[in-house]
Parts: sequence; structure tokens; C-alpha cells
Amino acid sequence: MNTPNSEIVLPLPDDFHAHLRQGELMPGYVRDLVSQFGRAIIMPNTVPAMTSAAAIADYKKQILEAAAPVRPDFEPLMTFKLNPNYTEQDLKDMMAVGVVAGKYYPAGVTTNSADGISDFEAVFPVVAMMEKLGLVLCVHGEEPGEFCLDREPAFIKRVETLAEKFPKLRIVFEHLSSAKSVEAVKRLPANVAATFTVHHLMMTLDDIVGDALRPHHFCKPLPKRPEDRKAIREAAFSGNPKFFLGTDSAPHQQGKKECPCGAAGVYSAPVAIPLLVQEFERAGALDKLPNFIAGFGADFYGLPRTTKQIKVVKEKWTVPAIVNGVVPLAAGQTLEWKLK
Amino acid sequence: MNTPNSEIVLPLPDDFHAHLRQGELMPGYVRDLVSQFGRAIIMPNTVPAMTSAAAIADYKKQILEAAAPVRPDFEPLMTFKLNPNYTEQDLKDMMAVGVVAGKYYPAGVTTNSADGISDFEAVFPVVAMMEKLGLVLCVHGEEPGEFCLDREPAFIKRVETLAEKFPKLRIVFEHLSSAKSVEAVKRLPANVAATFTVHHLMMTLDDIVGDALRPHHFCKPLPKRPEDRKAIREAAFSGNPKFFLGTDSAPHQQGKKECPCGAAGVYSAPVAIPLLVQEFERAGALDKLPNFIAGFGADFYGLPRTTKQIKVVKEKWTVPAIVNGVVPLAAGQTLEWKLK
Repeated sequence: MNTPNSEIVLPLPDDFHAHLRQGELMPGYVRDLVSQFGRAIIMPNTVPAMTSAAAIADYKKQILEAAAPVRPDFEPLMTFKLNPNYTEQDLKDMMAVGVVAGKYYPAGVTTNSADGISDFEAVFPVVAMMEKLGLVLCVHGEEPGEFCLDREPAFIKRVETLAEKFPKLRIVFEHLSSAKSVEAVKRLPANVAATFTVHHLMMTLDDIVGDALRPHHFCKPLPKRPEDRKAIREAAFSGNPKFFLGTDSAPHQQGKKECPCGAAGVYSAPVAIPLLVQEFERAGALDKLPNFIAGFGADFYGLPRTTKQIKVVKEKWTVPAIVNGVVPLAAGQTLEWKLK
Repeated sequence: MNTPNSEIVLPLPDDFHAHLRQGELMPGYVRDLVSQFGRAIIMPNTVPAMTSAAAIADYKKQILEAAAPVRPDFEPLMTFKLNPNYTEQDLKDMMAVGVVAGKYYPAGVTTNSADGISDFEAVFPVVAMMEKLGLVLCVHGEEPGEFCLDREPAFIKRVETLAEKFPKLRIVFEHLSSAKSVEAVKRLPANVAATFTVHHLMMTLDDIVGDALRPHHFCKPLPKRPEDRKAIREAAFSGNPKFFLGTDSAPHQQGKKECPCGAAGVYSAPVAIPLLVQEFERAGALDKLPNFIAGFGADFYGLPRTTKQIKVVKEKWTVPAIVNGVVPLAAGQTLEWKLK
């Protein structure tokens, strides 16, 4: 894979967790995403949320239009925001316009989740339909009302319940941040997988509140202790097919971060693949990177593996201080690898 | 103490930890402090730091001039920043201009501490002189290089060493944030006491990174888990003379907080006493408040207890959004008690 002139050829990556927002800022965010990815799971916590086939079809069309100048063959994998009110016909209608997954947001745990789920069992009938229809359930696994660092561990029991009650349902426990949840996913049956973000591979709570306050690193779930990051890295570098990339790249305009009440989310889309190459290389795990970015996730979702490729070259470049109004991950830093 | 018209008469409070900065912003910060306090330990981590009798005498004079219009009898209790280079004569010269304590900053753990102590044992000779001369040692007890939430617990062993090696030295383990350090101070001999801030009595890490990011709550040491706050509250409300108020009120201009790399510190000076009355009242511990704010600390420092008084009345008021360019603790909130 490593050629003499330090060029790496990789399968075109899939992002199994991306935020693109709506409105006038969306096209720029789409271009950042598709510069690195050929397919992406598009999160539905827009305002208003994605809850109908008509809205999702329209959103998909806008995304494709924005992607066209950069990557005309980009494939947005659409999702809906889970609530207890869908009928089976609603789900079928959404599948007909490209929906592959529904997203479980517990009430109030992250951006635009005030309308999330407060009654766990109330969504079981819809989840049962998703199981039957072959839709994936994506889960933001944090238990509302718990102390911030305990929210994800406290949610593990919910994932266990879902996995047991719906044994044919494919569940993605997203953006893991704790050693306990990594262990749980390993232990649970094959219908439970997990995503890791780029930033949870790299950061601990120290990167948000360790020395100064770093609002552009603030995200949910919170990066936690060094031993939690260690568990995430070891799982990512292990080649276990249960773990694959979902960046949770989440653009918030600079002013929504540098303010008295800052939004949660890290914007990694513009830098995701160069940073991952760097991290996997440093860990001596470059051979595990292709499956992590473009294999295991597609397999789990039942999608064909991509046949397209990208090249990454060993060439220093400096990450811009701001991209589309957003301060990206690693802003101002010099990276070792560059997308060609 | 509670009169029929809900007026509370309290001894004029002492603040055993206050930051006033230097330069043109200082007079406003002084006025905020002296509106609530009759004496205060003035922290020496100014730029440049307070390390000589001449600089400290000049700083004290500026503080007294700024205080005069509001409280002409304000008593600034001066401190120096500890380093290994002082002679006994240096310490005596500083005592002659009003210094009562030296401050131990481990290198790099908080605002303006890059020049702090990296070699623990190197300061022992100066600490021995302080013991002999009767100077108090104030300690920012966080161990550099540890994970953010472990820094204070990891420093307990240093305080234990100091207490054992210098049995006549009075040591203040400042702004406790963890149950472990509260337990350590209880366990250690009578020469070790501790301060609590207003904000560590009220907050956990949830108040900084729980839902949104709250830069105006960001401080060092970090507020920690609910059980840590519980230990702090119980100790403050218990009437144990080892625990008394040191607000660590730390003004940072709004732009130094709402930015990519925000400063640590909570500005509580404008609201400290009303908030404390509220917290002690809710805990049914109003009878413990006078000693906490104006008794135990003076006793420990060997100062006469104040004979002056202030009145606090039950009257709703709204904390300003900004005071002297700084967003204060409880900004915009309606409080139940007001200083008269």
C-alpha cells in the first residue's frame, strides 16, 4: 500500500455519521464532506427534523446538487429521526427515497434533540417495524439526566435491551467515548456494531478543559479519560469488524462555539482522512485503515463495498483556521498527509 | 439572626482568595471586591508576578486608592508568588509591607502559572523560612501532567509531605474540588486548612460541559462529580473550622473567555455573599455562615475577627449580564438576597 514516494491508495471512504445542516450554509458543508467521502450517512437532526419521505427526498436532492461539482457520484445515505408515531407505510415510503437507517436521539442529550425520545419503550413498535424492514437503528447512546461523564455508560443497558428484544435489528452504537461501551459492543451479538469519530480517537477531556477551554473540541458524547481513549484506539486498530468510521462531523459557525453557551460538535470533514492516516500510521496499523474507513461499515449496513479509490500523499500542509465559517478540527496545525 | 423583615446581619466578610489583576482594569475589580468584603488575600499571579517588597507595596497602595471611594477601611492582605530564590531578608521585607502569605503555584496548572514550581523539593528551604517567620503557605493543589480530573487528588501527597515536614507551617489547600481532598484536610493536623469557592459549592462539571459549553463557569481546579460537590457542601455547612471562604474570584474580560482558547476563572466577587446566603439558607445552615465567611479564616491566619457588620435583605434582584467587562457568576439570574 505504501509506495516508494509515500503515496497511499485507499478505497474511497464511507462516513457512517455526518451532519450537513440545511439552508444556505449546507452546500459548503456538503463540498467539505464529499471531498473526502464517497458515501455518508446523513443525520436527520436538522431544523425542522427529517421525519417524512417528502422532506427527506427534497433534502437528498439538495445534497446531490451541492455535491455534483465536486463528486457527482456521491451517495447520501438518508436517515429519519426516530419517534413513536411512524406507521409501517411511513417507513416504506422513506425507504423508497433512499433511507437506510433511523436515528435514536434521547431527549436533550445533544444538538437539536429537545424533541428526542423520553419514553424508551414507546418506540419499540416502530423499532420492531425497522427490524422487519431491514432498517438500521443508529443510536446516540447517552442517558438523559445523568452526570455528563456517566451518560454513555448509563445507556449501555438500553442498547443491551434493544439487542436482546430485536435480535435481527442492526444497531449502531455511535461515536463511542468510553471503555465500558467498547467492551459492551464486543460482548454483544453480531447485530450490534459501533462507530468511532476521528476526534474521539485523538482526544480526551483534557483537550476541552485541560489547560484552556477549547470550544472547537467540545462535543457530545464528551471525550473522557485516557484509558477510555486507549480502549477506542485499540478497538479501531484491531481490525474487529464491529468498529468502523462515523466522523460525526458537525459544523457549527464560529460564533455558535465562541459564546456564553456554546454548541457541541467537532468539524472534522475537511481533515478526517489525513488525520486518520496519521493516527493509524503512528499506531503501526495502516493495514487496518482500509476496512475501518471503507469496509466494515458497508458490510454491516449491507451495502456493496466501494470499488473507487483515493490517494493520500506524504506532504505537509496547514489546516485552514476556518472553513465555511467553521473552525475545523486541527485548525492551524500542520499535518503530514494530504489528500491528492 | 433572621429578623422579622428578613434581614440578616452578618460580620463583614473576609475573602481568603481574590484576584485583582493590574493596570487600568484593576480599580473596577477592586470596587467589586470591596463592595462585599472588608479584607481579602490578594493573589500574586499578576503580570509581572508579585515577588518583591517594592512591587507589593506599590500594588497595595494602588488597591487602597481604588478601594477608598467604596470602603476606605479595606484591608488587602498581600501575598508573594513562591519560588526557590527568596532569602530570609526578602521575606522579612515583604512582611514589612503587609505580606501574610506566599502562594505555591505548580507550573502550568492555572492562569499565569507557567513560571510556577516544577521542582517540589527546591522550594523547601524557602518554605522552612516561611514556617519560622509565621507566613501562611497558600497552595493551588494540582499536580501538573495528570489528567484534568486527577490533578487535585494527585496533589494531596504533596500537601501531606509539606504538613509533615513543616509541622508549624500553616498551609491552606485552596479551592477544594474533590471529596478526596476534603477528606485529606479533615484527616491532616490542625496546621492544614482549606478554602472553598462559591462556585465549587454550587457547580459540577455538568455546569461547564454538561449541556452546552459554559466558558464563564470554566475554572481551575475543575468542578468535578456530584459526590465531590456533596463533600464540599457538607464540609462547608458542618461548622468545621478547617474550612472557610476563599472565592478565587478571577476576572477575565468577556473576550478572553468567549474565544478559541478560553481563560480559567469565575468572577464571583459581585455576587459572592448573596449567593452564599442563598446556598446556606437552602441547606438549613445559615447559623454556620458567619464563621465560614468571617471567623475561621481569620482565626487560621491569626488575624483579629472583624467587628464590622453588613446587612443582607431578602429582596429579589437580577445579576447584571456584565460587570466591568466581565460576565459574572449567575449573570442574568434573579437572586433572592441582596446586600444592603
